[in-house]
Amino acid sequence: MALIEDLQWRHATKAYDPTKKVSKEDIEKIVEAARLAPTSSGLQPFRIIVVESQEVRERLVAGALNPECMRDCSHLLVFAAWDKYTEERIDTIYNRTTEERELPEGRFNSYTDMIKKLYASQTEEQHFVHTAKQSYIGLGLALAQAAELRVDTTPAEGFNNQIVDEVLDLASLGLKSVSLMYVGYRDAEKDWLAPMKKVRNPMEEFAIYK
Amino acid sequence: MALIEDLQWRHATKAYDPTKKVSKEDIEKIVEAARLAPTSSGLQPFRIIVVESQEVRERLVAGALNPECMRDCSHLLVFAAWDKYTEERIDTIYNRTTEERELPEGRFNSYTDMIKKLYASQTEEQHFVHTAKQSYIGLGLALAQAAELRVDTTPAEGFNNQIVDEVLDLASLGLKSVSLMYVGYRDAEKDWLAPMKKVRNPMEEFAIYK
Repeated sequence: MALIEDLQWRHATKAYDPTKKVSKEDIEKIVEAARLAPTSSGLQPFRIIVVESQEVRERLVAGALNPECMRDCSHLLVFAAWDKYTEERIDTIYNRTTEERELPEGRFNSYTDMIKKLYASQTEEQHFVHTAKQSYIGLGLALAQAAELRVDTTPAEGFNNQIVDEVLDLASLGLKSVSLMYVGYRDAEKDWLAPMKKVRNPMEEFAIYK
Repeated sequence: MALIEDLQWRHATKAYDPTKKVSKEDIEKIVEAARLAPTSSGLQPFRIIVVESQEVRERLVAGALNPECMRDCSHLLVFAAWDKYTEERIDTIYNRTTEERELPEGRFNSYTDMIKKLYASQTEEQHFVHTAKQSYIGLGLALAQAAELRVDTTPAEGFNNQIVDEVLDLASLGLKSVSLMYVGYRDAEKDWLAPMKKVRNPMEEFAIYK
């Protein structure tokens, strides 16, 4: 199925059927699409926390704007980004790339020196704005992959980051939560948005030709 | 073709063949995928500026880190986000949604009152961080759509935003540039990245199961 049809099919699901679980295989494909996302300088500064446990989700309900989605969805994906850029993190990525591409050691040194210098001149707050942005590329791709599989999703920003970070102990991983993605199968009776028309800015307003 | 295969196929193209143009139909599909992107509260606070003109691109070269891509690609897409949230912008979106869904006037008033209050409590700088983030969802989907069509792309952040904003007169549209996406067909001889292995964080590190 073509991407545009998948995107037309999907919507932000408002209610999930708690009896239906998404297969492990489908969850892995959704995560894989995000893993393949391109990111600034290839640094891939985000991770996905996959929460299936009902007990963990109960603890997250206090931080959720959509407590019913949190309880009833099949899986919760938490997109979490690096709290900051560090020389070590940059080196880890570029050492792996050098090794996997069988390039000479130090091949990327002049480039990594440049980005290390750039990030050293910024605050941690600026770093996190930047790492968080990258995670949205992955969020878009994960939503598209779920749609291709005809799996329902709800992307969500409105939540209490502090609670989510604490419950998932993200600080110990050097991560901070950015967005949530509920994954599952809709409850067709309660999902009031499902029958409604998808509304977007008209193309003649969205695209500006110069 | 499945999304994951499309994402495996794509890479950040380093050199374009200036003699090959992407069809109008394909450009429109790429833009359409971004237009369908979900965004926070459905506000769709970003636009795409499609630049084909060689003359405009010559003026943008001064702000580009990849001057050869800027000159040789087929089309440049500039992802630009709202400089701020305003009550009027929020109303425009929700009035359109109300009308297109044939809902009673004022259906979303309590929701829009809430988001207006939220954004009124933030600075314009915070607004732009948020609107820019949404544009990355669209960027990811546009890259995926191009890959589905086997059209090459290069997403790029590293550029002089001031020059891009001025050349495209984005301030008059209430927009600020966020990212660039070069679109075209690779020059297979000069595109040094094309034959190299795509390297990503291994799945067991990227996905954290809780």
